[in-house]
Amino acid sequence: MKKQLMTAALAFGLVAASGHALNAYAQARPDVLVKQRQAVMTLQGKYFGPLAGMAQGKVPYNAEVAARNAGYLSVLDKMPWDGFTPATKDEKSRALPAIWEQPAKFKEAQERLEGAVAKLVSATKADETAFKAAVGEVGKACGACHETFREK
Amino acid sequence: MKKQLMTAALAFGLVAASGHALNAYAQARPDVLVKQRQAVMTLQGKYFGPLAGMAQGKVPYNAEVAARNAGYLSVLDKMPWDGFTPATKDEKSRALPAIWEQPAKFKEAQERLEGAVAKLVSATKADETAFKAAVGEVGKACGACHETFREK
Repeated sequence: MKKQLMTAALAFGLVAASGHALNAYAQARPDVLVKQRQAVMTLQGKYFGPLAGMAQGKVPYNAEVAARNAGYLSVLDKMPWDGFTPATKDEKSRALPAIWEQPAKFKEAQERLEGAVAKLVSATKADETAFKAAVGEVGKACGACHETFREK
Repeated sequence: MKKQLMTAALAFGLVAASGHALNAYAQARPDVLVKQRQAVMTLQGKYFGPLAGMAQGKVPYNAEVAARNAGYLSVLDKMPWDGFTPATKDEKSRALPAIWEQPAKFKEAQERLEGAVAKLVSATKADETAFKAAVGEVGKACGACHETFREK
């Protein structure tokens, strides 16, 4: 509750500010929150895609790209979650009500992804075999979360 | 040319792969490139907005949030540029032809942002005065690039 009040206060303070500050204000707007969290998913796809391709042998393994993308993913995977506020429930998106009905399970799914990506980062410093296994675990973490919390 | 052939080869290899790998394939599609680079801009707004608010005194200075957001920005600021390929010229977006007509100047604008964000990261470890100055420089880097390369 205190946090919500603070958020409202922040938002209020930013109304009159610059264009950039207005973005901060806009974070409270459900449609903007949805846009921002979808932006993270888009970028996770951008950087995970080539790793999945490498792990499946469809693309030659490139250790440099693997390490770079894994590093990016380890930052991106922190970004979507604060966009899933209850205020966004009625926005058009593929987010399922399970997100708000089973918050502990949703949190667990986030942590599974973050853990798998952290292992992927380490694996990119090891060898291709470790890398492939770690990519598989990240893929499963994506899939498990989407299975329960995202519309088909 | 060699690079383009490789990209095509990569893309071809990924066509038959999983949904995630298809995202990698899709990177070659101009509309996807535009979506991805716009996703980065959305997230830069998400994390720069509150910093601009703090620098303008509209939001109380919070060193922890400042450092976190600056860190995120120092990763995000690497992500948009490979999305500005000439193949995206005719996609609907606010990108101006100047991007492809003045590639050296566009590159310079990218580097200006990256330099300003790097200084912002350092400033968040110093004090509020350094922070405010550094936020101003990042804002100017955003503005200068948008002025020349983005439609009003």
